[in-house]
Amino acid sequence: MRTVKAALIQRVAQAERCADLDACIQAIRAAAATGSQLVLLQELHNGAYFCQRERTEVFDAAEPVPGPSTAALRDVAAALGVVIVGSLFERRAAGVYHNTAVVLDADGSLAGVYRKMHIPDDPGYYEKFYFTPGDLGFVPVDTAVGRLGVLVCWDQWFPEAARLMAMAGAELLLYPTAIGWDPTDPEDERRRQLDAWRTVQRGHAIANGLPLLACNRVGFEPAPAAADSGDGILFWGSSFACGPQGEILASASETAPECLVVDIDLGRGEAVRRLWPFFRDRRIDAYGDLLKRWRD
Amino acid sequence: MRTVKAALIQRVAQAERCADLDACIQAIRAAAATGSQLVLLQELHNGAYFCQRERTEVFDAAEPVPGPSTAALRDVAAALGVVIVGSLFERRAAGVYHNTAVVLDADGSLAGVYRKMHIPDDPGYYEKFYFTPGDLGFVPVDTAVGRLGVLVCWDQWFPEAARLMAMAGAELLLYPTAIGWDPTDPEDERRRQLDAWRTVQRGHAIANGLPLLACNRVGFEPAPAAADSGDGILFWGSSFACGPQGEILASASETAPECLVVDIDLGRGEAVRRLWPFFRDRRIDAYGDLLKRWRD
Repeated sequence: MRTVKAALIQRVAQAERCADLDACIQAIRAAAATGSQLVLLQELHNGAYFCQRERTEVFDAAEPVPGPSTAALRDVAAALGVVIVGSLFERRAAGVYHNTAVVLDADGSLAGVYRKMHIPDDPGYYEKFYFTPGDLGFVPVDTAVGRLGVLVCWDQWFPEAARLMAMAGAELLLYPTAIGWDPTDPEDERRRQLDAWRTVQRGHAIANGLPLLACNRVGFEPAPAAADSGDGILFWGSSFACGPQGEILASASETAPECLVVDIDLGRGEAVRRLWPFFRDRRIDAYGDLLKRWRD
Repeated sequence: MRTVKAALIQRVAQAERCADLDACIQAIRAAAATGSQLVLLQELHNGAYFCQRERTEVFDAAEPVPGPSTAALRDVAAALGVVIVGSLFERRAAGVYHNTAVVLDADGSLAGVYRKMHIPDDPGYYEKFYFTPGDLGFVPVDTAVGRLGVLVCWDQWFPEAARLMAMAGAELLLYPTAIGWDPTDPEDERRRQLDAWRTVQRGHAIANGLPLLACNRVGFEPAPAAADSGDGILFWGSSFACGPQGEILASASETAPECLVVDIDLGRGEAVRRLWPFFRDRRIDAYGDLLKRWRD
């Protein structure tokens, strides 16, 4: 067994970006006090989910990586000796912005970054306006607690992303995320969506013999004034951890903020892969068409 | 809505191969009497699961495709006007045998075949001895009820197989399968395995916006005399159907034979894909390493 104690910080966004980062840092301190060695924050944790409408002034909130938020997370990582996975709005250049995960190692060094590769765009989630698709590929990050396969939100629906991280030796899949219901969705549709979100990620854990962490926002965020895009988003929380057979290890509230602390055995994946040796049997000679848009 | 009534015939294997095929045909007649238009049989439905031990004489039971079993299924398909997905031990040549799914159209014609691409090999499932890996790729079959993405058992753990079928226009994923517990497995491991099996397949349905059918054996089959490979297999039944959000539509017993009849709406997948347009956003420019064994 090689156990890592991980903390998933599921929060309700506050109004002010600085206040949100401060609150995250307080939560990281509380998580470290529980003995957590790894802290996963939710997607774009520095404030409200701003993609409910397309507004050019929002780009003012983007920052370089490394930059101010990376520095603040670096300081707390070093002070507490914990690995932190954060999620920032990166300004790379005028007109080139990314949805970027940063990984601060336990000594405070910037161990690596991941730029969200799959960018959604649907009513209330106008991310293609804000985020240039990532160009760093699917590369895990080595840290004091292991090799982390960090992906972001929409990536969680793509088996290819999880597979490529696993094939690069990731020992754990991590998803900062921001997903919720349209408040007008009926209850049965809400259940299907939440269960699908959980199930597809558990499927990645199973297909790759890896544990997985997903940290989501929680609570209602109204649509901006004059938005043409709906009725706001009711983020469904439900952050969770599962093991390499997809078994749920811990799960957070649908409605309330929570620091979900869970022990992850990074060694169990190898035992599971001996029982279910999928990587031995992949038909790489017959997968060429995966590189096509459609087989027509 | 474009509804197809499907029947999944979950059976306990009998001793004699001919008796098993006769029993399958009786079950198909009963399914057709319920109004079913599509019948899915379990993997290698013509007898006991013979891969618990490696024995050269077992190859005597293999047959050409088309051959006697295909002809018997053809006759019943034509007589009843139903589409049948069967699963046979194919003798292609001396020394070349396959685990082959056959698709009989509602007029009795052989609409297509699929040769199992991913071949397992673990204690009690010595399939690499018996089955040459398929060489027909992942090609769906057009039938009177729609374009069927037929895969077989071990394929169900590979997101690549489902993805390639979906990208070729499959409207429904179908898995004849034969999976169970080692009777010495403790109860918690049994639950993890069964739930993982169901979850990973539901994940394929979700990732591809497609409904899915899985038809499994049920009941205990002892290991052959003098087997070095364990204590037999307790096939776990639990055949199921799910929709394009992975929602369970119907589920069969863990312990008893059953003809599970379920209505599948082949039209709902398009609505789901408009909400969750994963195929729009696949990063085919960054998936090249999926064609590698490992990224090292």
